Amino acid sequence: MTKNKSALNVMKGIDVPETVSKDAAKRFLSKRKKELKVDEAVEGILSGNISILSAAITLIESNLPKHQKKAAQIIEKCLPYSGNSVRIGITVVPGVGKSTFIEALGLYLINKGHKLAVLAIDPSSEQSGGSILGDKTRMEQLSAEKNAFIRPSPSSGSLGGVARKTRESIILCEAAGFDTVFIETVGVGQSETKVHSMVDFFLLLMLAGAGDELQGIKRGIMEMADTIIINKADGNNIDKANLAKKEYENALHMFPPTESGWTPNVLLTSALQNFGIEDVWLTIKKYLELTKKSGYWLQRRNNQAKYWMHETILESLKNNFYNNTKRKKLIKDFERKVQQGKISPFEAAHMLLNKYFSK
Amino acid sequence: MTKNKSALNVMKGIDVPETVSKDAAKRFLSKRKKELKVDEAVEGILSGNISILSAAITLIESNLPKHQKKAAQIIEKCLPYSGNSVRIGITVVPGVGKSTFIEALGLYLINKGHKLAVLAIDPSSEQSGGSILGDKTRMEQLSAEKNAFIRPSPSSGSLGGVARKTRESIILCEAAGFDTVFIETVGVGQSETKVHSMVDFFLLLMLAGAGDELQGIKRGIMEMADTIIINKADGNNIDKANLAKKEYENALHMFPPTESGWTPNVLLTSALQNFGIEDVWLTIKKYLELTKKSGYWLQRRNNQAKYWMHETILESLKNNFYNNTKRKKLIKDFERKVQQGKISPFEAAHMLLNKYFSK
Repeated sequence: MTKNKSALNVMKGIDVPETVSKDAAKRFLSKRKKELKVDEAVEGILSGNISILSAAITLIESNLPKHQKKAAQIIEKCLPYSGNSVRIGITVVPGVGKSTFIEALGLYLINKGHKLAVLAIDPSSEQSGGSILGDKTRMEQLSAEKNAFIRPSPSSGSLGGVARKTRESIILCEAAGFDTVFIETVGVGQSETKVHSMVDFFLLLMLAGAGDELQGIKRGIMEMADTIIINKADGNNIDKANLAKKEYENALHMFPPTESGWTPNVLLTSALQNFGIEDVWLTIKKYLELTKKSGYWLQRRNNQAKYWMHETILESLKNNFYNNTKRKKLIKDFERKVQQGKISPFEAAHMLLNKYFSK
Repeated sequence: MTKNKSALNVMKGIDVPETVSKDAAKRFLSKRKKELKVDEAVEGILSGNISILSAAITLIESNLPKHQKKAAQIIEKCLPYSGNSVRIGITVVPGVGKSTFIEALGLYLINKGHKLAVLAIDPSSEQSGGSILGDKTRMEQLSAEKNAFIRPSPSSGSLGGVARKTRESIILCEAAGFDTVFIETVGVGQSETKVHSMVDFFLLLMLAGAGDELQGIKRGIMEMADTIIINKADGNNIDKANLAKKEYENALHMFPPTESGWTPNVLLTSALQNFGIEDVWLTIKKYLELTKKSGYWLQRRNNQAKYWMHETILESLKNNFYNNTKRKKLIKDFERKVQQGKISPFEAAHMLLNKYFSK
């Protein structure tokens, strides 16, 4: 049992080659005689200790105030050592096997001497009970690599909260020496916008043929992509993939120019046959070169930092208003009245707000 | 002087055939002996009195609490009479002359017996000092029509506030008997998402040739369009327009399916030669038929009402936090520190929030 073994090693404080599952990290936190101390955590992270990194991320994900306080202190101390990775958003159309692609690109990077962290924002993970087991099973080779760290989506909380936690985890991963960070999502909801706000480069992973497999992807995501990748361009799929490439290129050509000055492109890959994977990395490197030279990269990172400050404020203002049992019931009542046209949305809002602010 | 004449007529309480400018409405409010009363306003609106409608919208736009209170009461009383118009969002790529198109489509509708209100959300209007004069000058024919009401964007406030005011104005226009409402924007910012959340149908107005004239349009807007219109398909432009139509059709074909079940299309028009205008209206009618039959139309209207309730709440929570002179300075300081990497965005947010909530 891989899981037990890694948990055991964690308990012993040994830096295990595999990534540490959430459960193991939780046990690490709860079963240790003394709780993870801030300085101990920072030291561990900076020395590249994966178990401690994982435990610290578990603190970030915890909703206990004392954990949150500790997490905040760890983040502040890691901050000066962060920022040095390439942050890549990878969004997959539902149904496209993301794991084979991420594993292929990941292994390529590891072989080139990179250290790779794979984080996820998966709004569906709450329902499915987390995807770590699935991810780790599917990315068996990558998860066995010493220089790879795979961490699933936090399994509870609002999208805003989950995204913020992932954004905070990036800082710790970078401080732990990971020079490449993947943030993966399934392109079904609002999470892509959040991911777009924490990465340098945005990949959209698709299949050949723009028909049925696009069902479920949210409109607007295509226009965020810096590169569209058509995976599984192998076997009987090659002709279809080539056709799709041409069609997507034409479509991209009709889009308004990007702010970055970059011209989005379409690449064919076969993760199975390890075809086209290097091109993906070369494309990302080209993008980085262009945007670092133009100053766009830095400007975007700065704007993203500002964005997350305001986003965190907003999230907190919202929580303070909405996370109230009595108010929740009232809101439901007003929603119903608004939908029935009995009261205007504005009046309903004002009545709810008056109660809130008069307290 | 058109403006003076209409202002004069307003003062006399006469229902003028022309639309009433903002200035005139303001004067109407300030110079009358008695202020506009709620019941008087509602009665006037329901009887289709344009001057009173205009004055009531001015109340909506006012930031004075007593005006806002009155506006809210007027809206509530008009609510049962609202909802019966076709709400159409029209977004133009900057540089595309919107007025000729809106005038052509507007006059077509007026001639078919419709009553048309044209509202605008223009985030740039604050800088340019409002666009009413421009709009009215450019849409001379339409603004002279008895059954047309042209109202520019509120010229101050945040985008959220401006959008909310426009959304509220729709209710009054519908209660005044306008069966068609255009909400126009320039596709440069966040306003399109807001417009999308208050209309039944979303038009994107472009020019032939997808090159330079796309500069400035925001990515993601194309994927919101229910119909793309290529205007100025006349004279030397015809070949270019036909080519662009085909290219956009191919691009649209590559997009994920819409939630509505509608397949977005591309139409050629020449507002100048009055060509293709009828097709635009037939397309909208077809869309309405499809979505009303499927239940999507009603579901969307309901969701929009809910959206605006929560949007108004959010706007108010934000205002309460951000509209504070002392805090504004502090926020600027923290923004700087965050950008310099001296403090994490999250810690900065927490420090600002602690101060806010501890009061």
